[in-house]
Amino acid sequence: MSSPLHLHADRLFPPDPGVRQVARRLYESVKDLPILSPHGHVPPAWIADDLPFHDPVSLLLSPDHYINRLLHADGVPLSDMGVPPGERRLSDEESRRAWRIFCSRWPLFRGTPMKYWMESVLVDVFGVDVRPSADTADALYDQIAATIADPSFRPRALMDQFDIEFMATTDDPCDDLAPHARLAEDPSFHHRVAPTFRPDRYLEPASGQWVADVARLGEVAGVDTSTYAGWVEAMENRRAYFKAHGAVSSDHAHLDVQTLPLPVREAEKVYARAMSGAATAEQAKALQQTMLFEQARMSTEDGLTMTLHPAIYRNHHTQTLRDFGPDVGCDIPIAVEFTRSLHPLLDAFGTCPGFTLVLFTVDETVFARELAPLAGFYPSVYIGVPWWFADAPDSIKRYRQAVSETAGFSRTSGFIDDTRAFLSIPARHDMSRRLDSVHLAELVAEHRLEDDEALETIHDLVAVNPRRIFHV
Amino acid sequence: MSSPLHLHADRLFPPDPGVRQVARRLYESVKDLPILSPHGHVPPAWIADDLPFHDPVSLLLSPDHYINRLLHADGVPLSDMGVPPGERRLSDEESRRAWRIFCSRWPLFRGTPMKYWMESVLVDVFGVDVRPSADTADALYDQIAATIADPSFRPRALMDQFDIEFMATTDDPCDDLAPHARLAEDPSFHHRVAPTFRPDRYLEPASGQWVADVARLGEVAGVDTSTYAGWVEAMENRRAYFKAHGAVSSDHAHLDVQTLPLPVREAEKVYARAMSGAATAEQAKALQQTMLFEQARMSTEDGLTMTLHPAIYRNHHTQTLRDFGPDVGCDIPIAVEFTRSLHPLLDAFGTCPGFTLVLFTVDETVFARELAPLAGFYPSVYIGVPWWFADAPDSIKRYRQAVSETAGFSRTSGFIDDTRAFLSIPARHDMSRRLDSVHLAELVAEHRLEDDEALETIHDLVAVNPRRIFHV
Amino acid sequence: MSSPLHLHADRLFPPDPGVRQVARRLYESVKDLPILSPHGHVPPAWIADDLPFHDPVSLLLSPDHYINRLLHADGVPLSDMGVPPGERRLSDEESRRAWRIFCSRWPLFRGTPMKYWMESVLVDVFGVDVRPSADTADALYDQIAATIADPSFRPRALMDQFDIEFMATTDDPCDDLAPHARLAEDPSFHHRVAPTFRPDRYLEPASGQWVADVARLGEVAGVDTSTYAGWVEAMENRRAYFKAHGAVSSDHAHLDVQTLPLPVREAEKVYARAMSGAATAEQAKALQQTMLFEQARMSTEDGLTMTLHPAIYRNHHTQTLRDFGPDVGCDIPIAVEFTRSLHPLLDAFGTCPGFTLVLFTVDETVFARELAPLAGFYPSVYIGVPWWFADAPDSIKRYRQAVSETAGFSRTSGFIDDTRAFLSIPARHDMSRRLDSVHLAELVAEHRLEDDEALETIHDLVAVNPRRIFHV
Repeated sequence: MSSPLHLHADRLFPPDPGVRQVARRLYESVKDLPILSPHGHVPPAWIADDLPFHDPVSLLLSPDHYINRLLHADGVPLSDMGVPPGERRLSDEESRRAWRIFCSRWPLFRGTPMKYWMESVLVDVFGVDVRPSADTADALYDQIAATIADPSFRPRALMDQFDIEFMATTDDPCDDLAPHARLAEDPSFHHRVAPTFRPDRYLEPASGQWVADVARLGEVAGVDTSTYAGWVEAMENRRAYFKAHGAVSSDHAHLDVQTLPLPVREAEKVYARAMSGAATAEQAKALQQTMLFEQARMSTEDGLTMTLHPAIYRNHHTQTLRDFGPDVGCDIPIAVEFTRSLHPLLDAFGTCPGFTLVLFTVDETVFARELAPLAGFYPSVYIGVPWWFADAPDSIKRYRQAVSETAGFSRTSGFIDDTRAFLSIPARHDMSRRLDSVHLAELVAEHRLEDDEALETIHDLVAVNPRRIFHV
Repeated sequence: MSSPLHLHADRLFPPDPGVRQVARRLYESVKDLPILSPHGHVPPAWIADDLPFHDPVSLLLSPDHYINRLLHADGVPLSDMGVPPGERRLSDEESRRAWRIFCSRWPLFRGTPMKYWMESVLVDVFGVDVRPSADTADALYDQIAATIADPSFRPRALMDQFDIEFMATTDDPCDDLAPHARLAEDPSFHHRVAPTFRPDRYLEPASGQWVADVARLGEVAGVDTSTYAGWVEAMENRRAYFKAHGAVSSDHAHLDVQTLPLPVREAEKVYARAMSGAATAEQAKALQQTMLFEQARMSTEDGLTMTLHPAIYRNHHTQTLRDFGPDVGCDIPIAVEFTRSLHPLLDAFGTCPGFTLVLFTVDETVFARELAPLAGFYPSVYIGVPWWFADAPDSIKRYRQAVSETAGFSRTSGFIDDTRAFLSIPARHDMSRRLDSVHLAELVAEHRLEDDEALETIHDLVAVNPRRIFHV
Repeated sequence: MSSPLHLHADRLFPPDPGVRQVARRLYESVKDLPILSPHGHVPPAWIADDLPFHDPVSLLLSPDHYINRLLHADGVPLSDMGVPPGERRLSDEESRRAWRIFCSRWPLFRGTPMKYWMESVLVDVFGVDVRPSADTADALYDQIAATIADPSFRPRALMDQFDIEFMATTDDPCDDLAPHARLAEDPSFHHRVAPTFRPDRYLEPASGQWVADVARLGEVAGVDTSTYAGWVEAMENRRAYFKAHGAVSSDHAHLDVQTLPLPVREAEKVYARAMSGAATAEQAKALQQTMLFEQARMSTEDGLTMTLHPAIYRNHHTQTLRDFGPDVGCDIPIAVEFTRSLHPLLDAFGTCPGFTLVLFTVDETVFARELAPLAGFYPSVYIGVPWWFADAPDSIKRYRQAVSETAGFSRTSGFIDDTRAFLSIPARHDMSRRLDSVHLAELVAEHRLEDDEALETIHDLVAVNPRRIFHV
């Protein structure tokens, strides 16, 4: 009744024997390099406190909105999958039921990277050798649950096993970064876990919580944030705090990347109106753009790499937001524009020696049209790898084909996994290494690149570029 | 002087022998399944009355604006091709002359699906074995004309020969659907021909004919349409009539898919202004959006699948519209936006159990960016297959590569042929089956899918998905 | 220390042996056809006066903003590369230093066409057989410098060697075209060098120099340009002058392609305001659109092919413009729209017998969505080949795959090199011939095209289409 499950050594490699051989050779040369993960969403306390995992579903499914969204489309209520994750412990019955739902709907994931990643996790991490299905669900559940229960199956042991040299988390500017401090002070911990400064909520005056947010920011920073100058000082203060705790980058996700700074006096006036709740939508927007511009200015001074992740319509389905909160699968991409929007920012800082700006997109149309040309001129600009909906084999191939011809390989960021699914980190990096090897192998096969050039380039992509661009 | 014409058994399959073998095996498993055609433009009277075809050109060329537009670009007046079709019978001389023009310009169609479909029709339906050219035109004409003249060459016999199990036509809400009724009552007819509710003209208050159109709608429905409430009731009435005559879907083609319902009172006011011819362009647009939203609401109640075919700039060349009317080849696509535009509609109905919404596009950029993410969350939403200008091998391959990674295969609509070219229906479905087989074979070759998974999936795409999504 | 450099005979051909063989055969049939270059930027005086080249860098690097922009992104000041080109002679030390910088950063260009073209130039033109690197830089420099110094290495000899039958330059309407006249009158010169009418600056009333520009235009044309009617007459006059000097086309590069003619009286009024410096931004834009429309009208009368190259945000980095002037690498593409924008122009002139309009884009999204549908209906419209950032192997493959299915091959322009890099012209045309051969070979391999059809088509693309579309 059960089909075997195994990982083919040549997965993702093209069928042509000659190209496959080159791809294999390139991949072999980088497959065992340590993982550098400069952007992701693993909770730092997991590592700092080496927390045991509770059950298969809260570890593998509840936090994974890639998986839950497709189950939801197929008619599964999100609540059945333990969403929102982490709110309360699932009973064994609930967890087992969710796992059964997932296994019995396994065919939904054909053609998706969720299938690819989950297969890697099941085989490589849990030693599973049968395909998920209604029939195998319980046995798989037991096997995973038993592994999780083993005292050796803890986050720190997995950091060793996965060979994660560097991992960035994503953190609120008001966070005290205590887990990061504990890790830094722990002589037994041999990996680097860095915070990332993610100040979005403090840059959105149109949000209902903004006034309270900046007040809290002021308290934490010990700065009066009732003025724009105070806001700037508080931000600089918290960025310095993050940097002192090992941060290498700040991350920013707004609806667009428009930056157009208001003159200082005007910014102060609009800030005052926003604080009193009287700013118009236009003013709130103008202030947000000013604040994003200001973050870039700070980056030129403190050297934190600035990453932009724009153009997601968050919480597209209101009832789902009400019932389950954000980040559960109903965020939908929109088109994005970079060339005009970033003009003010790049005109001001694009050639500043200390500035590094990595541009991500889920709108593939800008890769060739805007991102490669921008990164191919401005020393500060790098093209982020495909992200979120685009982090999958065919999309990644399109990305390399879209950007390399204008920007080469030196202007691309190196892989980021951006994941909440801790166990899938090795599979994600491995996928990226395989696909970059394939792209280079195809160039070799078409005599556009020599073997030795390809070998050096795959090493650049996996190891050199991320270290350089994220100052690792 | 003549080149042979034949159809290669492996056409559209990739050259790599291993991939080709897998593709062939997948294709073999579905190639003889009956045709399900849930959206098209064959006149129902052809079938109901089993009308004989008149001449090669009025059957094969005059109604086919895909072919005529490229001839027009090459300098052929549309009138030479019997356009507008059906207005009057072509003389034998006119028909033969048009056929000669077509054959002598056959090289124009290299690289296009029009070549592929026509070759299939010529070989499979007419037994032709020489390539169209100036030299072969007359002989081909005679061969086709003789076949057409045979009493056995009638629409119903072709429905049998083509094994069309289900075929939807496209019909005006005021249509009495008499041909459909005759077919339903005919015990000798073993296929299903369903009408499709296509109410566009009644949703465009900015059109000069709208007031007369809704008046006629009212008469046919037996409802006073002088108020918005009356319009709604008349629509519900006609949808019920269509459903009683076998309809499974409503189809909607406006310039965009923006939906933003006016409050009822406001809708009534604007409707009254529009009826008196005094609505502004903005009001007419707002009313159109309200009416489209209302159609979705009706769908949630009567269960007709709602299909959207937006973003075509109709009748781009005014003189051509004046001389030949609509649908003759000068409709040009524009960019389209779905994420924001459909937010009100999906926020209201996206998770309604009875609602099915299929989104088509000729703007390929939205496949990965918007359609796959929407269909990968909302249980009601499905991604329509490539349509019109995109219904061709390379486009179809790009479509699968664009949507599968986010939405898998379960969220795609199954093939629709959308054609006026009755004889090409088998070739179009066959092309789709071949290309889906190729996509799956490539996943198998890269070890992203097992053989048995691919076999089940190709069957889903050809048979299961269309039955489920169009309630066939 | 040095790696060998050679050009593989099968470069750019796909690895599958069957497809490669077909591609090779197609390529062989056109590789030696003379070069037709209907759009480019070689200075005509180079040819007319058979000017000797001065040094490797001012010949190969300084004018090539494709190369310099990527070096700039890597941290090289543009001034180190002899930018702006032609301003002054580089000393041997400066030139040698720039060459060293380029060679030592050679890996930057992996994956780009700049690598491909430069390798072709080094091997085919200079007989180089080692790869550029810090170690080989000086030897390569000496080898190139020695070749350049040879009296036989002159533009006219290279025109012979490259077999350039026809080459268009790009020229200001006020240019007296003296070099073109000298070439036309020279019985020893057996090639055709034609000017191209490029009137952008005279169509931009918002530019600070516009008033002076149109005054100068009036002087050169001998027409009073203080009125719009005078501007029109001066333009017609200069177009006629260009045509008399062999011009076959006019070229237009504005931010968009919107055309919406003002009524004549309104145009006169707005023109008068613009001449007095009092036009608003909206008026200046309306006048620009009127003037572009007027250029199309002139094209229908004088038969100059009209080419549009829109949607480049010029001089994105202000400081670079200030320091180095335009055309040095900081022009960045933006999205573009054709369907609605060209409606007025095509409604008026789209079916005029004498009119030819070639539409170029660096926004690939419009190829399938807008350009192929437009060119597949309007007899006047042709799809320009990939240009600038898109003039590279993967982009060119995407282009053919995007447009062929709707527009076939007859509606595409034939290759243009658009280059300032004279020595790379053969490599660019050769690349195009190879890639078109590959596209056709893939159609043959998938049984979508017969061998003889592919052979005829590759000849059309290389020789027939450009002669027809550019009246060569």
